[in-house]
Amino acid sequence: MTERILVSPGDLLGDGVFETIHLRPAGPWLLEEHLARLRRSAEILEMPPPPISKIRTAISEISEMSGVLRIVYTRNRTVSVTVSTIPAAVLGERHDGIRAISARLDDPPPWSIREAKSLSYASNFAARRWAARHGAEEVVWLSSRGYVLEAPTSSVVWLTDGVLATVPPAEAGILAGITAAHLLSAAGEAGLTAAERMITLPDLAAADAIWLASSLRGLAEVTELDGVARGRSPWTPRLLELLGY
Amino acid sequence: MTERILVSPGDLLGDGVFETIHLRPAGPWLLEEHLARLRRSAEILEMPPPPISKIRTAISEISEMSGVLRIVYTRNRTVSVTVSTIPAAVLGERHDGIRAISARLDDPPPWSIREAKSLSYASNFAARRWAARHGAEEVVWLSSRGYVLEAPTSSVVWLTDGVLATVPPAEAGILAGITAAHLLSAAGEAGLTAAERMITLPDLAAADAIWLASSLRGLAEVTELDGVARGRSPWTPRLLELLGY
Repeated sequence: MTERILVSPGDLLGDGVFETIHLRPAGPWLLEEHLARLRRSAEILEMPPPPISKIRTAISEISEMSGVLRIVYTRNRTVSVTVSTIPAAVLGERHDGIRAISARLDDPPPWSIREAKSLSYASNFAARRWAARHGAEEVVWLSSRGYVLEAPTSSVVWLTDGVLATVPPAEAGILAGITAAHLLSAAGEAGLTAAERMITLPDLAAADAIWLASSLRGLAEVTELDGVARGRSPWTPRLLELLGY
Repeated sequence: MTERILVSPGDLLGDGVFETIHLRPAGPWLLEEHLARLRRSAEILEMPPPPISKIRTAISEISEMSGVLRIVYTRNRTVSVTVSTIPAAVLGERHDGIRAISARLDDPPPWSIREAKSLSYASNFAARRWAARHGAEEVVWLSSRGYVLEAPTSSVVWLTDGVLATVPPAEAGILAGITAAHLLSAAGEAGLTAAERMITLPDLAAADAIWLASSLRGLAEVTELDGVARGRSPWTPRLLELLGY
């Protein structure tokens, strides 16, 4: 029953909203409530309002009498309205019940996937919009214990007394940055020493220079951290050249 | 430069892995490192290994000399290799630097989108796999203060002394469940009182009955919570009928 849809690659980054609706012979159940929540979700993600009349038209063309009606609306304004069958396992749960286990949403939770580069980037983009509302372009995430972790799409690199350092990914439970690792492996060519270490925010702020490293940015020097301007480092052009940017 | 790709609707739920690579005249920069990380990310998400040779073939057919090379691999095994231009803002950051703001990854973080039904479901699915490893089908999430929040794709509903209750979405900072709200609005028809209240795990465990509510499940009774079996409630078939399931 489920068709395939044409999307942009950016539509695959989980940056959008959706609704899953029970399709009944009498029509989609609680449709107005689901459309209202779709609108509200788009507001929270600071997206343009979903095209409700276009969605209603798509729904009116559905011929199936039962199943799963899914509405997807992405930041690129891709809209998808599809129908599929309800999985047998879900139907079984209505009568057989379900075994549940509780878990505190610690940071990180026990099922953390933060060491993977997953497609679920909606929260990363939300963090960046939050930064924009506070006069910045990027967020430096800190652990609950106050250690520097990473930025939404980049690694944190800093220079202190000739030591070029980044956060140890496994110890911090973050994605292993490829650009940062490559930079550190080449530090010797620039006469610098390389190190991986955990660092607190005050120690980071006291560094000679801070950069955010990623494949596309190469290195972006942090010129202001938490509202405090930082002098430009003569190392920025040298390290960018070392990386071939 | 960017083409459109054909996917299944499920590919839009952020459940997959990706890599973003700097495409240079000499070829994709640090390609082997990125392919290795793609493999590692898929392992963390417990996905089948990415089809590396198929990806290499797609890359070898790219004619552009510079830009952004993006590899996407979803749980449905959809593979996409696309090229786009590097955004001007990113190029500017290499020379102009970037303003950063720090933030602790509290639960919820200040940019929380948990009240929205966003497409970024990789962590929700990871939570469910974690439950499966612990002999359960579902996770009941608790706040850092120990209050019951919700499950990865459903609301928590419980019955205590004739009161049918769920968690207040705004107070808890969770998605407003449509099925749960509808059930509570109809509680009077079943001779029950409806309430929204915060509840701790011990109080939930002491309830007469617990259900997970969602559009597709309707109600799935919790037959075991944290390894402790629970007697079946006579209310389950009555409330399912009330909801039209």
